[in-house]
Amino acid sequence: MKVTALAGGIGGARFLRGVKAALPEADVTVIGNTGDDIVLHRLNISPDLDTVMYTLGGGISAERGWGREDETFTVAAELKEYGVGPDWFGLGDRDLATHLVRTQMLAAGYPLSEVTAALCQRWRPGVRLLPMSDDRVETHVVITDEQGRRAIHFQEWWLRLRAGVPAEAIVSVGAADAKPAPGVVDAIAEADVVLLPPSNPVVSVGSILAVPGIRDAVRDTNAPVVGVSPIIGGSPVRGMADACLQAIGVETSAEAVGRHYGSRATAGEAKGLLDGWLVDTVDAGVTVPGARVVARPLLMTDLDATVAIVRAALELSGV
Amino acid sequence: MKVTALAGGIGGARFLRGVKAALPEADVTVIGNTGDDIVLHRLNISPDLDTVMYTLGGGISAERGWGREDETFTVAAELKEYGVGPDWFGLGDRDLATHLVRTQMLAAGYPLSEVTAALCQRWRPGVRLLPMSDDRVETHVVITDEQGRRAIHFQEWWLRLRAGVPAEAIVSVGAADAKPAPGVVDAIAEADVVLLPPSNPVVSVGSILAVPGIRDAVRDTNAPVVGVSPIIGGSPVRGMADACLQAIGVETSAEAVGRHYGSRATAGEAKGLLDGWLVDTVDAGVTVPGARVVARPLLMTDLDATVAIVRAALELSGV
Repeated sequence: MKVTALAGGIGGARFLRGVKAALPEADVTVIGNTGDDIVLHRLNISPDLDTVMYTLGGGISAERGWGREDETFTVAAELKEYGVGPDWFGLGDRDLATHLVRTQMLAAGYPLSEVTAALCQRWRPGVRLLPMSDDRVETHVVITDEQGRRAIHFQEWWLRLRAGVPAEAIVSVGAADAKPAPGVVDAIAEADVVLLPPSNPVVSVGSILAVPGIRDAVRDTNAPVVGVSPIIGGSPVRGMADACLQAIGVETSAEAVGRHYGSRATAGEAKGLLDGWLVDTVDAGVTVPGARVVARPLLMTDLDATVAIVRAALELSGV
Repeated sequence: MKVTALAGGIGGARFLRGVKAALPEADVTVIGNTGDDIVLHRLNISPDLDTVMYTLGGGISAERGWGREDETFTVAAELKEYGVGPDWFGLGDRDLATHLVRTQMLAAGYPLSEVTAALCQRWRPGVRLLPMSDDRVETHVVITDEQGRRAIHFQEWWLRLRAGVPAEAIVSVGAADAKPAPGVVDAIAEADVVLLPPSNPVVSVGSILAVPGIRDAVRDTNAPVVGVSPIIGGSPVRGMADACLQAIGVETSAEAVGRHYGSRATAGEAKGLLDGWLVDTVDAGVTVPGARVVARPLLMTDLDATVAIVRAALELSGV
């Protein structure tokens, strides 16, 4: 069975661990968000791709959910001694080696998709991990602070400001001119099932869908498309998705996010993405016109719970 | 008093520590060798400048003589896991932060001399540390091995091969087109005394002198010029200077190195660099025509011994 998933960082990666456990024989393609990518200290950093790679490859910090297990922060401490910022990005020493390899390969002319494949030769995540695009796309957030109205990199808003300053707009810089990475559209078109994990619907899944061609591929695939709500009882399961949803005028609720994704049964321009929408049991009764909505416990408390969620999503898909 | 020294790595840095202790009020300018500089993992690395900066700034590994005290090698170990070489360069985590800052600043358009000044704002080495040139100069070594006759970077010859394959030639790539960094020529011209520490006469002092304008500045300065022999009793005090001297056809002896530098009293094209040549007591009797040669214990066993060597050099200079 061919499974294709659009994934952000921590939530997506944990869900994918459940996909691998539920379907050990499946051919899984992950289309990873690169809108969070940032260049710091001349290093090309792809936080979401790395989170998926480390999580599925056994290198993730179990406690933090991002970065490497047994991580140290010696280089970052030294950079601080030099007064060279920013200091709000968690730049671990082990992680830094990944960035060095990526930066060298990109500078040598390899596209990000080939770089990611090369990094995965070490990590063997057991899935095919594709960046959404080989083109640079960066999520920027428009805020107003003491410096006036301005756009800052998503990572700065997320990590330095902890999403505490309202996002007036969230923009995928470069998305309009970006192309899906090789294999992305085919992986969606040829899948037996397409899954939207409980990733941030704005800055993770939303960024991926902002690359021209990807949204249409999801709308048009012959495979059923099932999404898993990242919102339970009106709150994000983790992260600060509410601050992102507010920026795009979508309520922080399982129903609102489901309707934001929309149903594939809707005709014309308004055609959405979902055949099925899996919500938590506390959100039973939610409706998304044109899509089947099923309620199941959605907290990924451990691998067993996550496998149950994946199975519920597959059941909902009918595959 | 204005003191200007041409320095390589470990030996030069230790000698300079003696200069600072012997002349705490002096205005010391160090012209550092950058022929050892190398780009690894897209990082601009200046080993000799860093050795001087860390040694005089209190950050050097006392045991190794290069790199940082309390160093860790996490990033290097991870790069090895990725199979990304080379693994023969000691890339410490603390050290790496220095390379990241340097690389960023160079990429932003700052010349190496300004980058070095910025790094020294943290380390406060108590001297003015100038790279010999802001232009890229790289020492390459011509060898013959199983791959045939070829030139490799000095660092590869020195660290990977431990200078174990004979150097058929040692070439300063880029030197012919390089200019002395701002302040270098003036520091030599305006000095009260110019010192050649017991650095490698070929790949350290020799590299510096290969930058057009620097040799002439030393020849023509009004200041006395005194060199300290890096060879004691026919052997290098440290390092593998003998392998370098062999490549340029100079015997590994205090006399041969002194004569290789030559005397400023020599007329015409053959005019050399030295007014005085300080050799070890075991080399008493050595002569360099036209230069005063004095024998004193030259092992820099501790700071007191080093200060005594510096005082002997100053005495020999007559300042």
